[in-house]
Amino acid sequence: MADKITFLGAGSTVFAKNVLGDVMLTSALQEFELALFDIDLERLKDSENMLNNLKATAGSGCVVKAYTDRKEALRGAKFVVNAIQVGGYDPCTITDFEIPKKYGLRQTIADTLGIGGIFRNLRTIPVMMEFARDMQEVCPDAWFLNYTNPMAVLTNAMITHGGIKTVGLCHSVQVCMPHLFDALGMEKDGVQTKIAGINHMAWLLEVTKDGVDLYPEIKRRALEKQKEKHHDMVRFELMHRFGYYVTESSEHNAEYHPYFIKKNYPELIDRFNIPLDEYPRRCVEQIERWKSMREELVGSKNLEHQRSHEYASYIFEAMVTNQPFKIGGNVMNTGLITNLPKEACVEVPCLVDASGVTPTYVGDLPPQLAALNRTNINTQLLTLEAAFTGKKEHIYHAALLDPHTAAELSIDDIVALCDDLIEAHGGWLPKFQ
Amino acid sequence: MADKITFLGAGSTVFAKNVLGDVMLTSALQEFELALFDIDLERLKDSENMLNNLKATAGSGCVVKAYTDRKEALRGAKFVVNAIQVGGYDPCTITDFEIPKKYGLRQTIADTLGIGGIFRNLRTIPVMMEFARDMQEVCPDAWFLNYTNPMAVLTNAMITHGGIKTVGLCHSVQVCMPHLFDALGMEKDGVQTKIAGINHMAWLLEVTKDGVDLYPEIKRRALEKQKEKHHDMVRFELMHRFGYYVTESSEHNAEYHPYFIKKNYPELIDRFNIPLDEYPRRCVEQIERWKSMREELVGSKNLEHQRSHEYASYIFEAMVTNQPFKIGGNVMNTGLITNLPKEACVEVPCLVDASGVTPTYVGDLPPQLAALNRTNINTQLLTLEAAFTGKKEHIYHAALLDPHTAAELSIDDIVALCDDLIEAHGGWLPKFQ
Amino acid sequence: MADKITFLGAGSTVFAKNVLGDVMLTSALQEFELALFDIDLERLKDSENMLNNLKATAGSGCVVKAYTDRKEALRGAKFVVNAIQVGGYDPCTITDFEIPKKYGLRQTIADTLGIGGIFRNLRTIPVMMEFARDMQEVCPDAWFLNYTNPMAVLTNAMITHGGIKTVGLCHSVQVCMPHLFDALGMEKDGVQTKIAGINHMAWLLEVTKDGVDLYPEIKRRALEKQKEKHHDMVRFELMHRFGYYVTESSEHNAEYHPYFIKKNYPELIDRFNIPLDEYPRRCVEQIERWKSMREELVGSKNLEHQRSHEYASYIFEAMVTNQPFKIGGNVMNTGLITNLPKEACVEVPCLVDASGVTPTYVGDLPPQLAALNRTNINTQLLTLEAAFTGKKEHIYHAALLDPHTAAELSIDDIVALCDDLIEAHGGWLPKFQ
Amino acid sequence: MADKITFLGAGSTVFAKNVLGDVMLTSALQEFELALFDIDLERLKDSENMLNNLKATAGSGCVVKAYTDRKEALRGAKFVVNAIQVGGYDPCTITDFEIPKKYGLRQTIADTLGIGGIFRNLRTIPVMMEFARDMQEVCPDAWFLNYTNPMAVLTNAMITHGGIKTVGLCHSVQVCMPHLFDALGMEKDGVQTKIAGINHMAWLLEVTKDGVDLYPEIKRRALEKQKEKHHDMVRFELMHRFGYYVTESSEHNAEYHPYFIKKNYPELIDRFNIPLDEYPRRCVEQIERWKSMREELVGSKNLEHQRSHEYASYIFEAMVTNQPFKIGGNVMNTGLITNLPKEACVEVPCLVDASGVTPTYVGDLPPQLAALNRTNINTQLLTLEAAFTGKKEHIYHAALLDPHTAAELSIDDIVALCDDLIEAHGGWLPKFQ
Repeated sequence: MADKITFLGAGSTVFAKNVLGDVMLTSALQEFELALFDIDLERLKDSENMLNNLKATAGSGCVVKAYTDRKEALRGAKFVVNAIQVGGYDPCTITDFEIPKKYGLRQTIADTLGIGGIFRNLRTIPVMMEFARDMQEVCPDAWFLNYTNPMAVLTNAMITHGGIKTVGLCHSVQVCMPHLFDALGMEKDGVQTKIAGINHMAWLLEVTKDGVDLYPEIKRRALEKQKEKHHDMVRFELMHRFGYYVTESSEHNAEYHPYFIKKNYPELIDRFNIPLDEYPRRCVEQIERWKSMREELVGSKNLEHQRSHEYASYIFEAMVTNQPFKIGGNVMNTGLITNLPKEACVEVPCLVDASGVTPTYVGDLPPQLAALNRTNINTQLLTLEAAFTGKKEHIYHAALLDPHTAAELSIDDIVALCDDLIEAHGGWLPKFQ
Repeated sequence: MADKITFLGAGSTVFAKNVLGDVMLTSALQEFELALFDIDLERLKDSENMLNNLKATAGSGCVVKAYTDRKEALRGAKFVVNAIQVGGYDPCTITDFEIPKKYGLRQTIADTLGIGGIFRNLRTIPVMMEFARDMQEVCPDAWFLNYTNPMAVLTNAMITHGGIKTVGLCHSVQVCMPHLFDALGMEKDGVQTKIAGINHMAWLLEVTKDGVDLYPEIKRRALEKQKEKHHDMVRFELMHRFGYYVTESSEHNAEYHPYFIKKNYPELIDRFNIPLDEYPRRCVEQIERWKSMREELVGSKNLEHQRSHEYASYIFEAMVTNQPFKIGGNVMNTGLITNLPKEACVEVPCLVDASGVTPTYVGDLPPQLAALNRTNINTQLLTLEAAFTGKKEHIYHAALLDPHTAAELSIDDIVALCDDLIEAHGGWLPKFQ
Repeated sequence: MADKITFLGAGSTVFAKNVLGDVMLTSALQEFELALFDIDLERLKDSENMLNNLKATAGSGCVVKAYTDRKEALRGAKFVVNAIQVGGYDPCTITDFEIPKKYGLRQTIADTLGIGGIFRNLRTIPVMMEFARDMQEVCPDAWFLNYTNPMAVLTNAMITHGGIKTVGLCHSVQVCMPHLFDALGMEKDGVQTKIAGINHMAWLLEVTKDGVDLYPEIKRRALEKQKEKHHDMVRFELMHRFGYYVTESSEHNAEYHPYFIKKNYPELIDRFNIPLDEYPRRCVEQIERWKSMREELVGSKNLEHQRSHEYASYIFEAMVTNQPFKIGGNVMNTGLITNLPKEACVEVPCLVDASGVTPTYVGDLPPQLAALNRTNINTQLLTLEAAFTGKKEHIYHAALLDPHTAAELSIDDIVALCDDLIEAHGGWLPKFQ
Repeated sequence: MADKITFLGAGSTVFAKNVLGDVMLTSALQEFELALFDIDLERLKDSENMLNNLKATAGSGCVVKAYTDRKEALRGAKFVVNAIQVGGYDPCTITDFEIPKKYGLRQTIADTLGIGGIFRNLRTIPVMMEFARDMQEVCPDAWFLNYTNPMAVLTNAMITHGGIKTVGLCHSVQVCMPHLFDALGMEKDGVQTKIAGINHMAWLLEVTKDGVDLYPEIKRRALEKQKEKHHDMVRFELMHRFGYYVTESSEHNAEYHPYFIKKNYPELIDRFNIPLDEYPRRCVEQIERWKSMREELVGSKNLEHQRSHEYASYIFEAMVTNQPFKIGGNVMNTGLITNLPKEACVEVPCLVDASGVTPTYVGDLPPQLAALNRTNINTQLLTLEAAFTGKKEHIYHAALLDPHTAAELSIDDIVALCDDLIEAHGGWLPKFQ
């Protein structure tokens, strides 16, 4: 039997193209079966067609196979890629944004922390635990590459409660320095970086060239750029105030802190160019765009692909060839970042080779960065507590500890908001007591 | 030479009466010299007179001696009690309350956390470090009993940077259960408690009688009582929402969280009966009351004293007699509370005997309590960073991480507020860069 | 139903007299039932009679009751005292000494470490795990006071694998300083001590009077005394070489190290006055003495008792009255001794009150003491590994890591010796693979 | 100014050829100055000549420069390679072997642990601390690659007390699996390994091919091979008994354990083919061989070099190019191996790139391997204690804790042996009290 890469949520056609198209272009991976699974059978079929077209143009030896039985898709897998979304834009994302809005609580993305992130976790964790149970049965030694958000909590759940070898992967690490340097017109070649923290709030701890710290120049240019409107104003402000650049975008970070979306300071939305309701807007656009994209991706016999910067195929390659590859990965904090809680999932440099994904030691973060991370970890850990005890009170705790939610609402409103969200989710959530 | 107990801030006549009056009533301590020091020579003289009157009525063998040279007061001390206040009501407490008020930031006590707590720390730490240097020279093995607030940060500084054997002591631990039980009309006899956390936010983790958990009855009565106005409403609400009773009073806890003093919800002040500006009001009353009290305390040849519940004399007694005594003490978190940062000062059960103050192991706090503690520890650790690096940016960080300040103000206002406070403090603060 | 103290191994009449006689003399414990259990029904009856006589002379309110069903004896217990011995002098102790002797491996006590200690653990752990299962069912909240040796391993097993609240208790802590001071003609009054390490190898870390270190005088006198033969020569030599006095006696410590019983240096036996085969000799004497003692203890209607120094009744009293009591107890190393493995059971100062037995923080031991402890912990942890994996190879590992065994024998002989001991034990051991 | 690689102990001509010859063949390193330093000026000159010849044949752009002032050699260095030996064969190695022999204590290599390792450390540490002080002054950010033995202790000293970024490097990691597979006639291609532990006693924890554990086959072949004499018998015996293959050779491991060189079992020397006095024999051979080798290495204008497997040039290359490279490196145990002491230096997989040498997380070793490592770490830590406190008693402690020394000698003999060695070393050691 051939080795097997199983892709859960394979109906994400664009992402499947990137990850599995990359695999088809990697010589060490040509004997793998690419096993596709999705609960949306139409999208599953689309991805299968698209990949078979790619296979033909790339001349790949990989076998593409779509499954309607998840356990069969997973059976014997060596690698599992997870890109599912539970509840979709309609109804769940709509719920995540509209109900808080009634309480005057505004969000931008809601896929990580905050009230939206909490409920996204609560509806996704049970599905992930089903994956873990299946994997324990049919591929207990497989590596699970999680791309689904909220990254930190889901990866934590999969490792701690699922007992599966998991690494969480997020583009924000790879693009952090290039994005910043492009924005500031600085040269990227030969730049060394060190990034660690938690997913979506990891920190560019070091950025040097030939041993010279580039931060003074970065900060000088950033202050200059900040005089005009641009799309990264929240992050530049965070760097200005806390001294370090953060991995995730300004629209995300706007809702991880109590500083930007404030009823008392409505002018900050404009001043920091904060796109409220950004994520649902993107969802609607994406859905609208799908029709034309579908034509292009699924219908085109001559579909081409260039190996992308997604970590997945490089990780498979490193594990298969034993050539070391370095990633920023999400793993449990087994003493790696010494001033963050041991129960947290952290994003740190990891070494990948035939031994798997091995995290490296970081030590203490600068104290202000550890403090900011801890405010987010508080909500993460209480969300996990809610998911695994089934107690409603821990949902309230998670929301009460969220920096943005707690800054904006009273305790009564937070509790009522949680109750409303539980009710609106209906069957998308397990029962809480 | 006799053994010596040195009292720094001996001009706090009432507190000196309690602590040193207790000593005079403890048979094992009759051979101690009671060495008084204060920078206010008039108040120092008052305390000396008061204690000599007490000595006569109590028939104590202790020798009372006032010093105007601090190092001489400390020389050869076995125990040092610290009850100083730096900057006093006027000007520093006035500054701590009035300047934030201009930014719309209201406080109740401002002696622990929050913007007031940060600056109280910054002006007190340098004085404490002078004490530490003196002690290293003239009584390096003495035990330092710190009663000065902000407790957690000052005790941390004294241990970590001062290198002095220190325990921080606060009444809130002793009176926690009795206060609660009195308020609810419950019987205190035979009740077992376990309390741990951080100073002013330690938690009544266990409260049992004959092995039976009393929390269900406590919560039932508390919910009932909460239907009417009373003076402990914030704590009852915290217990209702987070499941555990906290050691410090409602007026304190109102400002440790982002939930109670909110511009967006002005009705909460009345609803939870929150006494804004409580501490300056008390200061003014105390100053006014002093004239009559002085008569009574200093002028009375027949002054009497009954041994109080202050820990100090019991600690001295336990150390001298080797009879074990249990206290709730503030110590460094050397793995004692396993889900709070190791850099924090924690309040845990300690064993006192001839071996000194030995902290006991607690383990993990319930996750929601650890999370609440961590939000306060964030500000504590950044305040220490500011004090010991001399960098202004860390003062901003401390204020930006304070849950109440960050909920109410924008980044710009927080930074401006810090700058105003630095300027207003003038020579009361060291220079920051 | 009355509160209940269950005594397992109640046929140890002398020890039952001490522990339960103490209970009868403690006013706070007069309403307890004293539940006796032993598999030797004759000895059980003897202890019951003895205790009923004691009850009469003491006028105690305790009810004495003997059980033949272990689970019934444990049902509803608040405290359980364990003083069992598995396998007895004949056959198991004889086996433990005679088979090693064939390989030229000599022992003194063999109840702690060494080849004898390993097998004593292996035959006792399964019985203790039965106790734990019973307790989980009928008294899951009871405190288990373990007096059975090997203390460190059995206590570790009971906590880690049994899930029972356990403290291990050993006289060697209490008598350490008095024994030493009596031997050296020094005054014990007002002496402060601090003792920590592992059971039978805990260290007198501090010994002071009025703040003055007494070690220089102790060592001066000890060197003098060492010029003549006496019964504590091994410990004095250890103190001379490693700087600290150890809790357990010279006859025990002779076999915990590779330094004293050496085929290459046979003269050391005489020089350090080492009583080889001491434990079986004591067993024989005890058995012979029992006939006359039985008359005295069991037959005497006027049997009297004075409260002893055994910790048990003081622990019960402290838990019932909430008056703090300090003990040296064996507990898991939850970061208490920072340079010993976290998996080890350590002996440290503990606070006892209504909250139970709470261990205190010790920190680093002097490095040479930690090193000596680690050599013994190696064997302890591998013995646990053998017991809980059922793998014979880990028995070999335990023996191969034992300092005395490894110094004296070759690998082949150690393995053969283990095989012989497994065979000789027959049904006293579970099956190993 | 060019970047600079400083080589301390450059008179080790063969090793300098490997490391610096490798550099000359690495395109990314062509702009480096190669700064040579040695206290033996003749050997220094030899190495300079040899490297200039190599430079010519290789057409390298590196500049070779010999220094007689150590601080100037180090000034501005980016990398420092340390390959010094203090005391040499004559007199110090002779001393290390001959004096113990008088006490009947036999050794094989004596460069790691044991009585010889202890004294090799004690005479080398002060010199290393001088290096550290120089580097703090003239190249505080340089990476220090330590090749000098005893690896674990010297690397620990350099990091903990020297405050220099250091990694310790040893060939035994690279050649571990190939050596084993060659000996057993097994195919090395595609084999994945995981190695961790302490230097010279690190363990082949995993050895797989395509996910299949190769240990069963390895052990089967090893048992077969063990039926005849060969040169790796000690390691095969250790693997047979403890389940894992160890990195360092049989002649080394023979003296790290109490199992092989035993007066009581003299037949083991022959049975396990143990080359007593191997290291001095090699030294004598090497000195004799040098005359002919010198001709070849120093005198040959056409000297050629092929890039070796030494880690050094790959590490420089990875740091300069930011292409990740994986090594087994010696670093402080910052929670990396969770069942070894935090104070120890451990050998673990490390990631090397522009961020430097970053160690990876290992977790718990199998308990029997951790136990064996701890017996060696005991002596390492006590040697460090001796070196940095200057107290003779800690030298005794280090020797008393050494498994082989303690198994063979009595306490008195160990102490006398240490005293003899201290005296014989004379000025090669600092003064101990």
